[in-house]
Amino acid sequence: MTSAETKYLTLDGSLPLENGGSLQDVVVAYRTWGEPADSAALVCHALTGNADADDWWSGLYKPGAILDPERNYVVASNVLGGCYGSTGPTSINLRTGHPYGRDFPDVTIRDMVEVQRRLLDHLGVSRVSFAIGGSMGGMQAQEWAALHPDRIDAAVSIGVGITQSAWNIALSDAQRAAITSAAGTEKGLAIARMIAMISYRSPENFDTRFGRELSDSGFTVQDYLRYQGEKLVDRFDADTYVTLINAMDSHDLARSRELASIETPILAVGISSDALYPSSDVKKLADALPNGVYRTLHASQGHDAFLIETGELNRIVAGFLNRVDSRYPAGRDGRGSAWA
Amino acid sequence: MTSAETKYLTLDGSLPLENGGSLQDVVVAYRTWGEPADSAALVCHALTGNADADDWWSGLYKPGAILDPERNYVVASNVLGGCYGSTGPTSINLRTGHPYGRDFPDVTIRDMVEVQRRLLDHLGVSRVSFAIGGSMGGMQAQEWAALHPDRIDAAVSIGVGITQSAWNIALSDAQRAAITSAAGTEKGLAIARMIAMISYRSPENFDTRFGRELSDSGFTVQDYLRYQGEKLVDRFDADTYVTLINAMDSHDLARSRELASIETPILAVGISSDALYPSSDVKKLADALPNGVYRTLHASQGHDAFLIETGELNRIVAGFLNRVDSRYPAGRDGRGSAWA
Repeated sequence: MTSAETKYLTLDGSLPLENGGSLQDVVVAYRTWGEPADSAALVCHALTGNADADDWWSGLYKPGAILDPERNYVVASNVLGGCYGSTGPTSINLRTGHPYGRDFPDVTIRDMVEVQRRLLDHLGVSRVSFAIGGSMGGMQAQEWAALHPDRIDAAVSIGVGITQSAWNIALSDAQRAAITSAAGTEKGLAIARMIAMISYRSPENFDTRFGRELSDSGFTVQDYLRYQGEKLVDRFDADTYVTLINAMDSHDLARSRELASIETPILAVGISSDALYPSSDVKKLADALPNGVYRTLHASQGHDAFLIETGELNRIVAGFLNRVDSRYPAGRDGRGSAWA
Repeated sequence: MTSAETKYLTLDGSLPLENGGSLQDVVVAYRTWGEPADSAALVCHALTGNADADDWWSGLYKPGAILDPERNYVVASNVLGGCYGSTGPTSINLRTGHPYGRDFPDVTIRDMVEVQRRLLDHLGVSRVSFAIGGSMGGMQAQEWAALHPDRIDAAVSIGVGITQSAWNIALSDAQRAAITSAAGTEKGLAIARMIAMISYRSPENFDTRFGRELSDSGFTVQDYLRYQGEKLVDRFDADTYVTLINAMDSHDLARSRELASIETPILAVGISSDALYPSSDVKKLADALPNGVYRTLHASQGHDAFLIETGELNRIVAGFLNRVDSRYPAGRDGRGSAWA
């Protein structure tokens, strides 16, 4: 691969934010893979992800797969508001000399897309062959399709619908409350992660993995959950977490526009065991779009399956890309074979 | 109704606990309705409930309904470990002179049933015509069927399966973590309640009630959830909450016994929209029992529907009771008409 190193770009000037206000000299952390080209595939990450997409989505970077760097120029960046190198709550607020923390302004998915657009301008990428992401990444892919129809060929949105449901917002809010009312925000972040992990996995998945197995300290599933909470505290920031779940709650592809006006082909992939974003809600996204396509990823792991079942996901996405553009013919094995 | 007043009984002597240790002079808070009789219907409450069953289950106490005091002698008590008058974490530990708090011993659903048995002995009730409850109350009804087959005619267990699934335990554990790691246990209890309320209601219910409606402070669903959290803090105790979710996690009707050996007729009612205890898991309970009967309560509210859709619930339970015992013939309207 051409690059697996994270680079940092400062976007000179002002970035106006959708909810008012602006940020100056925003930094964006990014990675690219493959030969630089006019056209690139754009990978968008989920809540606690980063620009290291070849790490957390390695299955899609394999030879012949949809993000194979031998066939694509691929770009991924840490979102605006993130804590993996892009400007966010852990960045220094130049007005105060201290990190923004909870004073970081509200950002939306559309603001994240604007930062990505400016990054692509800098990289000389005039066309997005496809934008792809799961969960919060899927929201970004959707917004790319809506905001830049003249610049994108197709979008792939996995495990997420048109908007956050009231139930999604409720789950976010329990996590927000844990972070903002707990003794230390770190303890709150650990609790938020525990809540999230329950919603990311399916009851079936937990039953298969843990059942009622006991450990020295209780049930094994408790140890797993507590460990997941602590592990996130080691690698993530609590204020960033709140910033990003707020951005997710703000997501509504239909805000200030008609879904019927979005002509970019969008593949909406529903996950059969997803408790957080039921596949029936994901299908509604495809049904509301003139060029929407719905496919089900059959998997038992729940919402997180988009990070796990990459073989099947690759097959589904390759089939879609082949269908929307004959420049991406399917190989004999059904996988796209000529992405560039 | 004969009585809507809460009474308090001290059970002299020692109560050995299933997990070891014992409690002395346990107090049980209870209510009775109708004419005292040898045979009584026993109502078992859920996590944050109490002995005021004519209040929180008023629909089942209506004339002609299954708990109509004109036709039944009905008994309900606050569970062992509770905070509505029975011995629990808020009670004074006579050894220290202070409330038990987190030092209250582990209790199980079977320990709760033993306290109820001693209460019925005191009241001169030699037969339980039926024990009924939803959620944690259903667990108690199940254990009554298994522990006292010679004393009970039938049990009705609503919205709960054979045991707590790994996913149920995970949800409990996020709540436990919120309570035990938060700044004040009160804030933790509020967060725990927020988590619980999400699992008690269905995504459909939240969407219908709240959608993405905005309030001055955010989304309306957030206000609702925060209010539910604060409201519980006003009426419940955090250590009691942990004691009772621990007891629920311990529930396993198959612990140290064969389900096939439980011959008491048990009606298992699954709630069609229940995310916490899917109806498919509830059906497994009925299927595993020699005299198990499964029925679905069709309702959109999720797990909490057993407290809301009492008209339909009454119809389902009356039909079952009529089927298991001809002493309870159905009236012309299908409702039981001769309970006493």
